[in-house]
Amino acid sequence: MVSPPYGHPSDYETEVIRRQTDLTPTDTSSWSFTPLQDLDGAFTPNGLFFERHHGGIPDIDPAAHRVMIHGLVERPLVFTMEDIMRFPAVSRIHFLECSGNTLTEWREPTSPTVQQSHGLLSNCEWTGVSLATLLNEAGVKSGAKWIVAEGADAAAMTRSVPIEKALDDALLAYSQNGERLRPEQGYPLRLLLPGYEGNMNIKWLRTIKVTDQPGHTREETSKYTDLLPDGSARQFSFEMEAKSVITRPAAGHRLKKTGFHEIQGLAWSGRGKIIAVDVSTDGGHNWQRAELEEPILPKALVRFRLPWRWDGEPTVLQSRAIDETGYVQPTREQLINARGLNGKFGSVYHYNAIQSWRIDRKGEVHNVHA
Amino acid sequence: MVSPPYGHPSDYETEVIRRQTDLTPTDTSSWSFTPLQDLDGAFTPNGLFFERHHGGIPDIDPAAHRVMIHGLVERPLVFTMEDIMRFPAVSRIHFLECSGNTLTEWREPTSPTVQQSHGLLSNCEWTGVSLATLLNEAGVKSGAKWIVAEGADAAAMTRSVPIEKALDDALLAYSQNGERLRPEQGYPLRLLLPGYEGNMNIKWLRTIKVTDQPGHTREETSKYTDLLPDGSARQFSFEMEAKSVITRPAAGHRLKKTGFHEIQGLAWSGRGKIIAVDVSTDGGHNWQRAELEEPILPKALVRFRLPWRWDGEPTVLQSRAIDETGYVQPTREQLINARGLNGKFGSVYHYNAIQSWRIDRKGEVHNVHA
Repeated sequence: MVSPPYGHPSDYETEVIRRQTDLTPTDTSSWSFTPLQDLDGAFTPNGLFFERHHGGIPDIDPAAHRVMIHGLVERPLVFTMEDIMRFPAVSRIHFLECSGNTLTEWREPTSPTVQQSHGLLSNCEWTGVSLATLLNEAGVKSGAKWIVAEGADAAAMTRSVPIEKALDDALLAYSQNGERLRPEQGYPLRLLLPGYEGNMNIKWLRTIKVTDQPGHTREETSKYTDLLPDGSARQFSFEMEAKSVITRPAAGHRLKKTGFHEIQGLAWSGRGKIIAVDVSTDGGHNWQRAELEEPILPKALVRFRLPWRWDGEPTVLQSRAIDETGYVQPTREQLINARGLNGKFGSVYHYNAIQSWRIDRKGEVHNVHA
Repeated sequence: MVSPPYGHPSDYETEVIRRQTDLTPTDTSSWSFTPLQDLDGAFTPNGLFFERHHGGIPDIDPAAHRVMIHGLVERPLVFTMEDIMRFPAVSRIHFLECSGNTLTEWREPTSPTVQQSHGLLSNCEWTGVSLATLLNEAGVKSGAKWIVAEGADAAAMTRSVPIEKALDDALLAYSQNGERLRPEQGYPLRLLLPGYEGNMNIKWLRTIKVTDQPGHTREETSKYTDLLPDGSARQFSFEMEAKSVITRPAAGHRLKKTGFHEIQGLAWSGRGKIIAVDVSTDGGHNWQRAELEEPILPKALVRFRLPWRWDGEPTVLQSRAIDETGYVQPTREQLINARGLNGKFGSVYHYNAIQSWRIDRKGEVHNVHA
């Protein structure tokens, strides 16, 4: 056997795959989960990067693709991909998380694996052009307060972004983990808004309109908002709040032996760096500080580790993340007190509560609320 | 179109592939180059990671694989892959470079692209067990000075490593960029010796013998040594010395326009961190310090960038890396003065001289000695 020009995983690893949700009636608008239970380190290989599409995955010839910047600008501009790639590039390591990640856990602990509960989460190195560079080329007019970004997919995904974010760390990304974006990640170009909820990172990006107000599009009115107990909707929440999950051992695993096990997981915050992760091995009574794997980067996944000896008794494992703003990942009770349980699944979006995995006497790990 | 369970690149990117050398008479012992000219950032996707095999790529069932530690130890041990994975894990970002990388450039500038001249070079996040952890389990006896590591491939690749390195940052790695090693990278387990020449990072690892002297194997006597002008051989050089290369623009590219171009490339050192990269746009007369992309990690690839305006005149682009030990990447003349030109290609291994790319009046970029 020799190496193929483009390699692929071992034939012994065919179960390490993305898995599609069973909650969508068709494939046209659906999502697929990253197998977090099988991954190591902080990076997600491109072939396993989670994906969410709202109107299929368009087939875009990069030579024919154009990106327009218009609206409140001095000089409306249209760029080819070749134009985009002539600008100075930047590479940054950032997570992406769907704001619907873990939506199944609001009312009942329904997901049988961490892939299904938390797998709308991935992390990679992105390369592209700073959006600020392109906006400066176009010349942003005074009075500009938002950009409205639109994708070239059948859903014409459209989201509004504050101009401050657009001029800060936003990228128009064309590569991930060194190579060009995968088709389902927005090939040939996507918006990348570090720390912001997944759907705002518009894939297959075709237009950016600079405006004085948000677009109030479908994805920021009827979708991706949180219905609060007082009947109002929480809109434009943008940043994914600090969250963590133990990925090994996790639901679906079985501890075959008592004694030493390394507890491992992932932590992240849309507001900056993770500064600590606490782990409880007794259902939240006592907490120990986990070791964080370097480098710890802002708005990027961090792997945490804690050595542990299992004595064979049933117990509950939990983790909680703390970010550099001082925000502490809430319990489910704290989260529900703040947001209520007002939607089909309780609420739907922005569930970031502490996750509990119960280990029974046989060593089997279960998803529970504890 | 929907996403496949394991994704693959866009159909528009089929030319971004590894390419095999034409220097080997058969595929049984050969190598394939990473397409550095097409990649962004610091990471190499697993499908494009360079590879070198000496006796084909074995098909190893991880459930049947065993790793033995024996020799000068208190307790000879045999591990299953499940055993290995129960130990505490570590993840580290490191480059790998074949010590034969750029061998074609000793006498004449023969490679038509940077893929062929420098593409035996890749970078990823590795996860595995610290070798020190396993050696401590086995109990290293006094008098131990080396380990001899052997692969399970048909070539039984075998290399000797000083015990100090084995107890320092050496890993037994089972994952790269989050997922299990690819078959051609040593699935299910390889030795990872950060900063050391590629072939020492034994793939398909099956035994580690702790010894009081090196094995003086084929790969450290007739191969991977440097014949010096005085007739002696430079053996056990281990660390890959600081090196850099401009990957855009590089040989095979054509500048279509005068004016702004970002010069980009990669720098690395087997001895630690890169602290600076200088770029010359006039054949080495003047040098400017390039910007280095964060995070800058020891023994890892770093991308450098320099904004540049091409005036349409012929010129030569060069880069030179400086690492934290103060080592400065040499010119070809300095390197030949130190090592001579005594082999088939001049010398063969450990070529790390400054690379020159000449831009002609048409904007075409050529590999030259300058």
